[in-house]
Amino acid sequence: MGMTMTQKILAAAAGLSEVKAGQLIEADLNLVLGNDITSPVAIHEMEKLNKKEVFDKDKIALVLDHFVPNKDIKSAEHCKCVREFACKNEVTNFFDVGEMGIEHALLPEKGLVVAGDVVIGADSHTCTYGALGAFSTGVGSTDMAAGMATGKAWFKVPSAIKFELTGRPKKWISGKDVILHIIGMIGVDGALYKSMEFTGDGVANLSMDDRFTIANMAIEAGGKNGIFPVDRAAEQYMKEHSARPYQIYEADPDAEYDETFVIDLSELEPTVAFPHLPENTKTVAEAGEVKIDQVVIGSCTNGRIEDMRVAAEILKGRKVKKGVRCIVIPATQKIYLQAMEEGLLKTFIEAGAVVSTPTCGPCLGGYMGILAAGERCVSTTNRNFVGRMGHVDSEVYLASPAVAAASAVTGKISEPSEIGC
Amino acid sequence: MGMTMTQKILAAAAGLSEVKAGQLIEADLNLVLGNDITSPVAIHEMEKLNKKEVFDKDKIALVLDHFVPNKDIKSAEHCKCVREFACKNEVTNFFDVGEMGIEHALLPEKGLVVAGDVVIGADSHTCTYGALGAFSTGVGSTDMAAGMATGKAWFKVPSAIKFELTGRPKKWISGKDVILHIIGMIGVDGALYKSMEFTGDGVANLSMDDRFTIANMAIEAGGKNGIFPVDRAAEQYMKEHSARPYQIYEADPDAEYDETFVIDLSELEPTVAFPHLPENTKTVAEAGEVKIDQVVIGSCTNGRIEDMRVAAEILKGRKVKKGVRCIVIPATQKIYLQAMEEGLLKTFIEAGAVVSTPTCGPCLGGYMGILAAGERCVSTTNRNFVGRMGHVDSEVYLASPAVAAASAVTGKISEPSEIGC
Repeated sequence: MGMTMTQKILAAAAGLSEVKAGQLIEADLNLVLGNDITSPVAIHEMEKLNKKEVFDKDKIALVLDHFVPNKDIKSAEHCKCVREFACKNEVTNFFDVGEMGIEHALLPEKGLVVAGDVVIGADSHTCTYGALGAFSTGVGSTDMAAGMATGKAWFKVPSAIKFELTGRPKKWISGKDVILHIIGMIGVDGALYKSMEFTGDGVANLSMDDRFTIANMAIEAGGKNGIFPVDRAAEQYMKEHSARPYQIYEADPDAEYDETFVIDLSELEPTVAFPHLPENTKTVAEAGEVKIDQVVIGSCTNGRIEDMRVAAEILKGRKVKKGVRCIVIPATQKIYLQAMEEGLLKTFIEAGAVVSTPTCGPCLGGYMGILAAGERCVSTTNRNFVGRMGHVDSEVYLASPAVAAASAVTGKISEPSEIGC
Repeated sequence: MGMTMTQKILAAAAGLSEVKAGQLIEADLNLVLGNDITSPVAIHEMEKLNKKEVFDKDKIALVLDHFVPNKDIKSAEHCKCVREFACKNEVTNFFDVGEMGIEHALLPEKGLVVAGDVVIGADSHTCTYGALGAFSTGVGSTDMAAGMATGKAWFKVPSAIKFELTGRPKKWISGKDVILHIIGMIGVDGALYKSMEFTGDGVANLSMDDRFTIANMAIEAGGKNGIFPVDRAAEQYMKEHSARPYQIYEADPDAEYDETFVIDLSELEPTVAFPHLPENTKTVAEAGEVKIDQVVIGSCTNGRIEDMRVAAEILKGRKVKKGVRCIVIPATQKIYLQAMEEGLLKTFIEAGAVVSTPTCGPCLGGYMGILAAGERCVSTTNRNFVGRMGHVDSEVYLASPAVAAASAVTGKISEPSEIGC
């Protein structure tokens, strides 16, 4: 029996010629990631293990992104802890305020992840890098600590679900609609501890930013990872961003999949996940009249340059509805600068939106747009659990940048066609 | 005995031909201001007074600026309270996320304050508008409530100190250096409950932004208000920003002053206020080696377009020192846009600074750059009390945008000449 793409990467990283689903392996790590919330815990764990040094100062990435610039004294102390650790260990890839961005947008942009890599990160959305044909997955801070100390991690080899994508998405349909559609279809535990392997001729019709968005939300279906084949677009992306060599792995023709779903991208409609689970999806057409108080466009899911372009295309010459706060958060300093150069930030401000410095902020109820009781937000982020963005009686509706921008203009959940886009 | 400029404004607002220092008067208000921290308290006070309506929906300004976009659930609830009150009372000048800015930069920009006005605001830096020849002063939330309900306020007529400004400041010397110099000279209670009246031919050598900065910090010397004569520059400013008629009041030639200080602006040096009081001033030359962790350029004191220009001139082609976080906060959406158009924001980002959406944020330890124990910040804000920007064991050094930007480059308190500016 052949191996899936994920299994092949894990086999190579474990120095094995073959692995099977369910097998326990120890794999070499190409990168260990942590942020300002999770790294302090990992650093303290390392101290408990009496490990004084990291295994490789070039293979650790520490990104301050969740609560920076420091939202309070506690976050300031956490950042200080990470900063001192990074300094002491001469961590090459420490990203402080000013160099930073949201980790999962930043690492690919900085060329720190390429195809064939095995990456763990103490953040659940570490699965993002599957867009580049890497195996990457979220772990706890203890695993991060062990990873930083040893450069290795134990994994149970996952089985896989195949998603065969065909066709070309219509205008305004993006990776976010694809992944929301999938999560709506299989549920938030539909891929529990499984690889979500995306294949099919439809992949070529998805931009790299679309693929990052899709892989990013694999965890929202419970997936161990989400992964895309490495095609010309992925290779192009890596050549533009990284000097590191990469290794392309392909699933064997006889690889075993627990299930296969065929999804015709051309049939997808603007999709929104209602509170309080990403699986509660409806098309916008089915959503009915849902008035909103706030729109957030950003996050590791949808804060990339294409997301900014789509939102600006819709907001250009239009106004955010009176009574609605629209918060736009480019995911990295580079994206911020690019969006500025292209006039997108100007469009946002002129429309009555505010533009934040890169941060995870509101996505996890951190800061920069927390909701009061009874308030509703359409957000391009990845989770809409109870209280995720503030008060337990607030509501988050997950959507694409196109739907979010259109909703900011109308003040209710809307698709771009409703405002003539 | 003649009246001071402030006394003349107050007399007119009280319908009296003459007032004397110490006299209690009731004056008509042209504007009552509140923000997201103080307005909810005032709104509840109005409810207690059983006052259901505001005296004039055009003469209330409610600005959400301190903790927005909402930094937490509590601030979200406060903003919601203000939003609902503004909506119910049809408050014309309610500034929500997206329309907003830091109140004391926003109101003059929006043309809501002109010469001769009497303005109270439930924020201590309401004294800023003295730059336009208005009487404006900070009050508590209860006075704000009474002001919103009645359009009137009681004042004890202040006596005054005259500051006669002469000469022209050297390059890089700004209004911030002037006011820090003055506070260093007279102390934080040097003008307690007095008007600080600025006069002299040196006034013409101060830009309007300089004057806003100086008037803004009158309260840091204990002043009831700070006020400037209305010259051509002030009239030009008002004509550009407001359609409202204005009234110019001049101090009588025989007005009585408690004290008179003559300050030669050409002799001033870059000045910094050491922890933990604005009166602890030294010239940068006297400061010695003070290493810093963070720089904040912004606030109601120094977040205006000239401040952005000065900071950008210094940061252009330079880099923020490794290990220093530099946070730039344009004070209003208009200033943000202008700074973007002029390429200033690009300069900041390229230098390794981050650019925040307009907010008071770090100045009062709100968010967007809170300090951990032992950290030091050079800040263009107005207060450096113990714990003002975070941990009680952190330190804030108040300075001009020029000194702040130069310090960001060197990583220690520096003046622009140290880096060849």
